[in-house]
Amino acid sequence: MNNFEFLNPTKIIFGEGTVEQVGKEAAAFGDKALLVYGGGSIKKTGLYDKVTRQLADNGIEVFELGGIEPNPRLATVRKGIDICRANGIGFILAVGGGSVIDAAKGIAAGVPYEGDVWDFYVRKATCKAALPLGSVLTLSATGSEMNGGSVVTNWEENLKLAHLSIHTYPKFSILDPTLTYTVPADQTAYGSVDMMTHVFEQYFSHTADTPLQERLCESILKTVIENAPKAIANPEDYAARANLMLCGTYALNGGMISVGVANDWASHGIEHELSAIYDIPHGAGLSIVYPNWMKYVYKERIERFVQFAVRVWDVDPAGKSDEEIALEGIQATRDFFTRIGAPATLAEVGIGDDRLAEMAAKAVQFGPLGHFKRLNQEDVERIYRLSL
Amino acid sequence: MNNFEFLNPTKIIFGEGTVEQVGKEAAAFGDKALLVYGGGSIKKTGLYDKVTRQLADNGIEVFELGGIEPNPRLATVRKGIDICRANGIGFILAVGGGSVIDAAKGIAAGVPYEGDVWDFYVRKATCKAALPLGSVLTLSATGSEMNGGSVVTNWEENLKLAHLSIHTYPKFSILDPTLTYTVPADQTAYGSVDMMTHVFEQYFSHTADTPLQERLCESILKTVIENAPKAIANPEDYAARANLMLCGTYALNGGMISVGVANDWASHGIEHELSAIYDIPHGAGLSIVYPNWMKYVYKERIERFVQFAVRVWDVDPAGKSDEEIALEGIQATRDFFTRIGAPATLAEVGIGDDRLAEMAAKAVQFGPLGHFKRLNQEDVERIYRLSL
Repeated sequence: MNNFEFLNPTKIIFGEGTVEQVGKEAAAFGDKALLVYGGGSIKKTGLYDKVTRQLADNGIEVFELGGIEPNPRLATVRKGIDICRANGIGFILAVGGGSVIDAAKGIAAGVPYEGDVWDFYVRKATCKAALPLGSVLTLSATGSEMNGGSVVTNWEENLKLAHLSIHTYPKFSILDPTLTYTVPADQTAYGSVDMMTHVFEQYFSHTADTPLQERLCESILKTVIENAPKAIANPEDYAARANLMLCGTYALNGGMISVGVANDWASHGIEHELSAIYDIPHGAGLSIVYPNWMKYVYKERIERFVQFAVRVWDVDPAGKSDEEIALEGIQATRDFFTRIGAPATLAEVGIGDDRLAEMAAKAVQFGPLGHFKRLNQEDVERIYRLSL
Repeated sequence: MNNFEFLNPTKIIFGEGTVEQVGKEAAAFGDKALLVYGGGSIKKTGLYDKVTRQLADNGIEVFELGGIEPNPRLATVRKGIDICRANGIGFILAVGGGSVIDAAKGIAAGVPYEGDVWDFYVRKATCKAALPLGSVLTLSATGSEMNGGSVVTNWEENLKLAHLSIHTYPKFSILDPTLTYTVPADQTAYGSVDMMTHVFEQYFSHTADTPLQERLCESILKTVIENAPKAIANPEDYAARANLMLCGTYALNGGMISVGVANDWASHGIEHELSAIYDIPHGAGLSIVYPNWMKYVYKERIERFVQFAVRVWDVDPAGKSDEEIALEGIQATRDFFTRIGAPATLAEVGIGDDRLAEMAAKAVQFGPLGHFKRLNQEDVERIYRLSL
């Protein structure tokens, strides 16, 4: 186990009906809030009315930034920063999924910063302060509700980059599983893939002597595997939705399940190039890429892939070589993604081979990707080709 | 899963050599600190010198309260409160195990409170504020380094009671596994029992649909079972000490592993009466009591005990009744405690049957104990008798 620091200051308020607490929680952060949300589904479901009534009842003046994109854009984040500055807003409330929360984090970090917020994403500057933000989660997937990470896309430059800061952890996040009842089957599947791959990035590691962390990862994976099909089959299965929501949050809450473990994150870098150019759902891109990354790298530490196959997929190891067991686990992962309706090839999402080299070059612009196996441009392009 | 709130604001700094950061961390909380420690082993090991040098180097004036008892006493906590008030001290640094950290929490809560700190423990008053505190952990056991709970003994009244507050979470805790190299075999065993029973209190529950929480509990149990014998056999096995330290912290860090799960805690109540009168180590008392509690209650939800036996102890269920499987898991627990050197009977720690009724009456003074099975005075006395 490596040395580490861990701090997660987000307060989680979980369960049916907890959205009724949003006004009281928000009121602790002043009397002006920027309400950030997505394409308007929260208006159809009535959540928008509930939240704005709560805020009004607690004496909070509400400003709005709707229309956050599924891959939230830098231009939108800048717009939010301008609204906050122009109106002296001191608190941001994100109501939506990971994209909406990520946009809110970008805005929160940008407001008190003198330069352009994009500096944080291209690693030109370090975030020293941010406005407080809260969230009401409507999609189980990214874990953004309990971490300090955000991913923003600069559409002009086709760059999709992440920024992590202790200052952009939400002060509170309201997690009501019933708010995900209306999430369609495909988005439920992509969200499940997203949380599983977050665990993979922390689980496939060379760090020695981390038995607890490995088991925590396996616990989340097995629980997602059990519950995602149930939530897809019966969208109003409270237990399945609640279990998925908790899995998504724990899968990426500042590294609680992988303290002291070197993480990988190559596959996320590889996927970000796909959605930066083609604007496909992040979880769909991960579903395509991840099993191919696994096939490309599993020999680097085959024991970990054997453990994965046996413990997570219940592969019977009797009479099989390590190679066979590992490959069976990878195939089980692919089969599961397919079974819940997530894509397996770039062709399925309409992506051909014409820009693979360009994406591979961009993916390694800050250096080789990953830790489990360091991937250079050529490696990344090979993984794209395996994904055609 | 029940609705829940979760917030854990403690910063963990983990790994060999991290004690070098204590001065910098403490300096954020002013220039006067009360250093709280136990029987003086930190002077023998050199830790005292390291810490005080660090504090001095960071311009912090140090006041001292040594000699904290293994079951920390109310009189000692009151003494600490007086020292803080008399000297305008604004920060408390606990260097030791759970008892020392618990005493520090009592002091932290008591200083800004107008009444007597014991009010919090007898539930006469609610803690509204506390001095900031930090810890340097020297024993893996209680989890006090990452939660808001403290247990204090009122020796005059033979009462050992717990107090939980969000205000008494340490601001930071430094967890260096090498500081536990000098912990003797018996204390290592008691600490391991303590963390396992913390998990048991959260795992044996009637709450439905909590597959992730159950697996997180099982993950810790399996990791303790693997690592405690290694740490006892080879006290300087870094990996074993680090794994135990992380298990102890995660086992009771504000309920992270059991969010939305009704906890039990009857056995802790039963044990507290033992150590309140006989001053035995808490972990030793738990080792005696817990398997007897299990035998007394397992029929309340036998499936959970079957799952425990199969998943934690790898009991082969083939051809066995649920009853047989459950009992095999309970016996495996007892055998493990015995194998690492923890006691199985009250007789082993010199306790007879003369005060069982008195202890049972005190154990239920605030009402019946537990959630898995509500225990009245008669039940508690029966469990004591099973433990003779």
